[in-house]
Amino acid sequence: MVKLVLVRHGESIANAENIFTGWNDIGLSKRGIEEAKRAGELIKQVENFNPTHIHTSLLSRAIETANIISEINDILYLPITKTWRLNERHYGALRGINKDKAREIFGNNQIKKWRRGFDEVPPLAKDSLNDRRYDSIDPNILPKAESLHQTQKRLMPYYYGQVASHLLLGQDQLIVAHGSSLRALIKKLEQIDNKEILNLEVPNAEPIVYTMDSDLKIVDKKILS
Amino acid sequence: MVKLVLVRHGESIANAENIFTGWNDIGLSKRGIEEAKRAGELIKQVENFNPTHIHTSLLSRAIETANIISEINDILYLPITKTWRLNERHYGALRGINKDKAREIFGNNQIKKWRRGFDEVPPLAKDSLNDRRYDSIDPNILPKAESLHQTQKRLMPYYYGQVASHLLLGQDQLIVAHGSSLRALIKKLEQIDNKEILNLEVPNAEPIVYTMDSDLKIVDKKILS
Repeated sequence: MVKLVLVRHGESIANAENIFTGWNDIGLSKRGIEEAKRAGELIKQVENFNPTHIHTSLLSRAIETANIISEINDILYLPITKTWRLNERHYGALRGINKDKAREIFGNNQIKKWRRGFDEVPPLAKDSLNDRRYDSIDPNILPKAESLHQTQKRLMPYYYGQVASHLLLGQDQLIVAHGSSLRALIKKLEQIDNKEILNLEVPNAEPIVYTMDSDLKIVDKKILS
Repeated sequence: MVKLVLVRHGESIANAENIFTGWNDIGLSKRGIEEAKRAGELIKQVENFNPTHIHTSLLSRAIETANIISEINDILYLPITKTWRLNERHYGALRGINKDKAREIFGNNQIKKWRRGFDEVPPLAKDSLNDRRYDSIDPNILPKAESLHQTQKRLMPYYYGQVASHLLLGQDQLIVAHGSSLRALIKKLEQIDNKEILNLEVPNAEPIVYTMDSDLKIVDKKILS
């Protein structure tokens, strides 16, 4: 038996302001810091969870959450990998727009499709990111907007290569990521269909603990809160 | 021109209590956290310093300092490598003993030799470390006590392989480590002889900024405080 724990970052300043964030780099709010600490305490109580690696995105709200969890669990020394493949879904031209404002412009129905549908791609971002953190990545593979499906496609190579490969060796793993990137991953792990995924929400800082057998079949799932 | 910045961690709880720490894993004191923040602010003011990698030890006081500096400099997304080769010098059987107490037992002169000499090895630790963070390292290469020279010998392969290799590509690098591991590195970088090194102190959280030419010859050194 091996354990995989997924955590969405604590509340960011943009969550608090109800903005489409995506690849904008927004830090944790004060409440988000407290949520991250609590997630750390909850993970501390998971029996037989001894992760060998921590995986997170290139976005500060996830990295801050991972660091807080590590400090509380006395695992600061673990290798931590930060990858754009665990980044939040790229919201394209919606990035930085208030969600109510976006509903006024595009209509409630369209926004719902973009937010919750599996294959709906929001309007492409016009501006390039111009962010040093992506300098070493081939610009041709960086998205300008993503459906949840596209998010899943760029995430899974990382999951199989860097997470599942360790799980198969019996090494517990910890992923700290984002609402939509985790939805995309969970959809694959639990084989949730395109309609059901509409209803899946991943709340901030509530650790999801999967116990898997040696073939990585899920034998238990707990959401800690 | 390329920049290498070295920082010793902020004050740890053991520094505050005047204890031989070495490989004991002690967190930052409250003062240490403030010192780390200040080191972060000082580094922020260094012109043309854009590190591509952060290197630190497996010990929490250095990792916490690196995380605080990263947060303040908005570089949380950078790859961070944590390695035992940047750990503090291993103080063997002196580990965990108050320095005044050690002077009473072994005499002031002997302690001075152990602390400041280049080749003096403190008494070997009797207990094994029994610490999960070293599980993946061949126990035959892990020290039971080290002279400063031995510390330098296990540190330099990491420096050449993982730090200098990037500096040669023009990529600035940041190392957050410990009083003695940094003394060992500085001795090599500045070609300080065995006697002079006796007088070199590396204070907590005062960044040392080296500017190097394309052959990694030091053309400038500044200590920020």
